[in-house]
Amino acid sequence: MELVDEVRKGSVRALAKLITLVENEMPGGIEAMEKIYPLTGNAYIIGITGPPGAGKSTLTDRITKELRRQNHTVGIIAIDPTSPFTGGALLGDRVRMQGVSSDEDVFIRSMATRGSLGGLSRATSDTVKILDAYGKDYIIIETVGVGQDEVDIVRTADVSILVVMPGGGDDIQAIKAGIMEIGDIFVVNKADRDGADRLVTEIKMMLGLSSVEREWTPPIIKTVATEDQGIGTLVEKINEHRDFLIKSGMLACRRKERIRCEIIKMIEHEIYRYLDGLIAENKDFFEQRLEDIVNKKEDPYLLTKKTVETIAKRISKNANV
Amino acid sequence: MELVDEVRKGSVRALAKLITLVENEMPGGIEAMEKIYPLTGNAYIIGITGPPGAGKSTLTDRITKELRRQNHTVGIIAIDPTSPFTGGALLGDRVRMQGVSSDEDVFIRSMATRGSLGGLSRATSDTVKILDAYGKDYIIIETVGVGQDEVDIVRTADVSILVVMPGGGDDIQAIKAGIMEIGDIFVVNKADRDGADRLVTEIKMMLGLSSVEREWTPPIIKTVATEDQGIGTLVEKINEHRDFLIKSGMLACRRKERIRCEIIKMIEHEIYRYLDGLIAENKDFFEQRLEDIVNKKEDPYLLTKKTVETIAKRISKNANV
Repeated sequence: MELVDEVRKGSVRALAKLITLVENEMPGGIEAMEKIYPLTGNAYIIGITGPPGAGKSTLTDRITKELRRQNHTVGIIAIDPTSPFTGGALLGDRVRMQGVSSDEDVFIRSMATRGSLGGLSRATSDTVKILDAYGKDYIIIETVGVGQDEVDIVRTADVSILVVMPGGGDDIQAIKAGIMEIGDIFVVNKADRDGADRLVTEIKMMLGLSSVEREWTPPIIKTVATEDQGIGTLVEKINEHRDFLIKSGMLACRRKERIRCEIIKMIEHEIYRYLDGLIAENKDFFEQRLEDIVNKKEDPYLLTKKTVETIAKRISKNANV
Repeated sequence: MELVDEVRKGSVRALAKLITLVENEMPGGIEAMEKIYPLTGNAYIIGITGPPGAGKSTLTDRITKELRRQNHTVGIIAIDPTSPFTGGALLGDRVRMQGVSSDEDVFIRSMATRGSLGGLSRATSDTVKILDAYGKDYIIIETVGVGQDEVDIVRTADVSILVVMPGGGDDIQAIKAGIMEIGDIFVVNKADRDGADRLVTEIKMMLGLSSVEREWTPPIIKTVATEDQGIGTLVEKINEHRDFLIKSGMLACRRKERIRCEIIKMIEHEIYRYLDGLIAENKDFFEQRLEDIVNKKEDPYLLTKKTVETIAKRISKNANV
């Protein structure tokens, strides 16, 4: 696989090409990843999540600049559909972030959140590995904390940073809604706004009430990313947390968990590809069955059972080739 | 299946029992659903979603009261973890909604968002069918619009209502983040707050920019659910939309889509159960493989392939019994 060798040698063009190959599940993708895998394990992976509008992209931009100042190389994977990195804002009223994108040692890649089951997770974890093998010191994954897939991605980073902002009194609601437990570090961004201190207090209270046992007490950092305030402290805390993970042996533990999650997502995705193929090849048949089910001539449970069995047969057949 | 007969005869106790049976995937569940399925198709299904704090539960409560006033029976399925119906608020600072829960002709059921892949969708769609067969005229599904599963559930309702509220300027961000396309009716709740009219204008603009072709122009209704304002209009719009769906033939179309989604979720869930079982039975084996993968003695792609094949073999074996 020439492409993998070129990536190892530092070709940015090969890097982008390989990611595209793997993302689109083109032929040779798995073989390439098998060659990439042993080269991984050196990059440190930072997950950044939070509700839309919390300022995750600006924060990502500023963290990247700080890491660059310390002479580290950085890769950014943006999955947040509202992120300026992805350029995908619905109203088109945003510009692509300019701060770091002209820096040659920062590689930015956007990922679409759409796609088949587990596809996003797989594409993201493959891209992380490729950037890792390429030699990036830090990889930042920015994602909006709404979908299960996105939360899973951040959960399996080496450090996960949850970004919130004061305003409206609904922030806490958003945190309640399931993304509270995943933060190693909390960031109250736009901390020059009213209510920042109250928000810090509320997060503290919730952390206190949480049933999760913690050896690490998540710090709550106030930042104003647009003004570069608090970024130095945040990067310090990231490194502090890293030391904690290494000393406690939890880094290895966490990476094992990540692999576990990744494998489960890959299994789901692989089976889903068979389902997709089966339906595509037998469109008329499935449409007729659906028609019959809607008209109560059949029930959906039998079709489910039969389809699962057909997928199983196909997989077994392919395995014996 | 005695339980199904009792449900048909109107036993609330049997109704609750059957839902529990099916939700927990206890023996006899699928057989019961096979008997339930032909009895369905009479209820009208309303999906309500929106960001946390938008007031979805109060709105659900008020819509229910209005429907009851018109002598319709109602079933409520609450999936929103921040909903007072579910009683699951993290801080425990909320009380269960009292408005409709004492009304005998309103059946309220909470669903947990946790659980295995597709499990929530399956439990919800089964519960909808049971309530339908039981004879409820309207079934309201209330869910927070954050997870893919939840969005899918609302998307396949007969009518989906997207609830937002003014405040903070971030609402529009939340709408952008993927839940915009699913609304048949938009509700700006808490419309006595500042910024309600601006929010209406913004939604209108976004609907105009949307690439989705629409035969139905989604109305935007201002409500103050706590004060019962706008609820009458909202229920009128729900019925207007229903007439539109029936006349245009889109109701049948939409229900066919729902069945399609449901079957795919059931297939995913069924396969996931096999995966779950396989891992549970071979814990040590999988732990050792993970260890080897973390230590780069193996790569994760082979384990994925082998696991998929093993699941396929198991399914095929069970099919032949």
